[in-house]
Amino acid sequence: MTKPVVLISMGDYNGIGPEISLKAAASPEVNKLCRPVLVGSLDVYAFYARSIRQRVTLREIDPLSMIRRDGPHRIPVISARRFVLPRITPGMPTADAGKWAGDAIAICMRHCLAKNAHAMVTAPVAKSALNAAGYRFPGQTEMLGSLCKSRNASMMMVAEPLRIGLATIHLPVKNIARSITRKAILGKINTIHLSLRKDFRVRSPRIAVLGLNPHAGEEGLLGEEERLVIAPAIRRARSRGIKAYGPFPADGFFGNRAYEQYDAVLAMYHDQGLLPLKVLAFNRGVNYTAGLPIVRTSPDHGTAYDIAGKGVANPSSMIEAIKLAVSISNNRMKGSR
Amino acid sequence: MTKPVVLISMGDYNGIGPEISLKAAASPEVNKLCRPVLVGSLDVYAFYARSIRQRVTLREIDPLSMIRRDGPHRIPVISARRFVLPRITPGMPTADAGKWAGDAIAICMRHCLAKNAHAMVTAPVAKSALNAAGYRFPGQTEMLGSLCKSRNASMMMVAEPLRIGLATIHLPVKNIARSITRKAILGKINTIHLSLRKDFRVRSPRIAVLGLNPHAGEEGLLGEEERLVIAPAIRRARSRGIKAYGPFPADGFFGNRAYEQYDAVLAMYHDQGLLPLKVLAFNRGVNYTAGLPIVRTSPDHGTAYDIAGKGVANPSSMIEAIKLAVSISNNRMKGSR
Repeated sequence: MTKPVVLISMGDYNGIGPEISLKAAASPEVNKLCRPVLVGSLDVYAFYARSIRQRVTLREIDPLSMIRRDGPHRIPVISARRFVLPRITPGMPTADAGKWAGDAIAICMRHCLAKNAHAMVTAPVAKSALNAAGYRFPGQTEMLGSLCKSRNASMMMVAEPLRIGLATIHLPVKNIARSITRKAILGKINTIHLSLRKDFRVRSPRIAVLGLNPHAGEEGLLGEEERLVIAPAIRRARSRGIKAYGPFPADGFFGNRAYEQYDAVLAMYHDQGLLPLKVLAFNRGVNYTAGLPIVRTSPDHGTAYDIAGKGVANPSSMIEAIKLAVSISNNRMKGSR
Repeated sequence: MTKPVVLISMGDYNGIGPEISLKAAASPEVNKLCRPVLVGSLDVYAFYARSIRQRVTLREIDPLSMIRRDGPHRIPVISARRFVLPRITPGMPTADAGKWAGDAIAICMRHCLAKNAHAMVTAPVAKSALNAAGYRFPGQTEMLGSLCKSRNASMMMVAEPLRIGLATIHLPVKNIARSITRKAILGKINTIHLSLRKDFRVRSPRIAVLGLNPHAGEEGLLGEEERLVIAPAIRRARSRGIKAYGPFPADGFFGNRAYEQYDAVLAMYHDQGLLPLKVLAFNRGVNYTAGLPIVRTSPDHGTAYDIAGKGVANPSSMIEAIKLAVSISNNRMKGSR
């Protein structure tokens, strides 16, 4: 069996994305599992390669079928744009960097949809840079959901065995409550259920659903969404044979380790899911987009402009993201045989 | 020096409050530090005393000055109500239990305001029971803030050295954003600053303030409150000589242990503060109300109706709450000498 091809999109070239991509693509751990391909700019990777201690040799390829790897220190690169040069200013977000990042994501996605590659891993990009470049999405997850026309694409944070899905992602807190609808919750439960079966090979998954409000609304005294929206969505999911439970008060659920009894947790908003995950598994968390036709993961951190170009960025979360992408890709192939 | 007198209000008599109060009041650890007095119903305590393994002797006293302790197994009780008997139904919330709980809180508060006692610790009560009894407050913290006329009373969760204050407490998520005002944030920063100096004896406290929105608003793309409300409040606090910093993205702040650099953290809402605290310090967390003229603490958990009357409730958080109340009371007395 040949190793799966994993595309790594460059992310914001003024952040730590290119550096952690290089470090990960050069690591023996990654090369044992897959053939990593960088998608972005050879100039950018060459620039950041000088700041790290590892020796790497970059080789531009086109088309993708040209991949031939001579070893972990020879890394194939696909160019995301032609006839333009990036203007690298480490630590400073620019519209040009957003354009490169967005184009790299789109190329990775097209290759994955066309089955030229098995999975894609996206290095971090700041929303401001993406938006300034005309990619008007609140984040990469929403961009991919939209481009793949996957309405129930769901952000999941994974640090095995902990898997946390998010009902809403990049929303201001004042808009969260109005986005919590029965249809949305049911769609997310369904996406997570299918993903657990197909991507994680859990035969009969158990899903815990958190409440939105403090104390899960305390019987309506601290909010109505649990009674009117979340509980009915859970009942509907159960009537379809999905093992969904809750809604649980979020603080106690994580405090008393109730999550150990479930295969995944559906949190209602960004910080409700990411706070416990980052406390329990910092630098191990991986961002996975469930419900896409392709396999896409990403590290759990941002562009870290403050340390860009210094050679000190930690590639662990990127490496975990690649490992998870390979595992999901393998699981999907087993399922389709 | 005589030991400080600590009043323990009964909480909901159909929950685990009376049981953990008894266990804590009988513990040598607590009796070494203070003279605990139970405030509630002798009948209730006698009822729950039968379900626990410890032998305790209860002794009703009135007035409070009658306290004479023969040892940790002789526990003084003050009755919260006269001429009525509680109708104990473990696990079932009732309006009668709410009335007893509310009356016990009010009595403890009056004794503390009158300096008959040094501190009060409140056992848990369900908001629904309190409300059904006519105590129309979202929680005990708000009830005490209102009865003591302390407008900037602030809930803090303490698990030394971690101290987390809350800008809003028992609010439905949909109402959080509109409650985050400059005046409110500045008031909370000020309350926490004074409490750190007076109650925790930190000479020059450093306070971290979290953002409201995901990624602390990501420069306005994911919410405006950081730029328009929180950052200006922090600047105002600094102009008054308070070392306030932020706003920080909550998930990264806890994930990379940035909290270790500060004496307290101000979270914007309930789950943002309680999720990390309970993950980092479950069963050790204590709820403290900063900014009251009296000293009041409480365990970090609820009534736990599901295990009420079974004798299995864990008194650790109650014991921690008593220890913190004694420590704060001692610190305040040192300060006033």
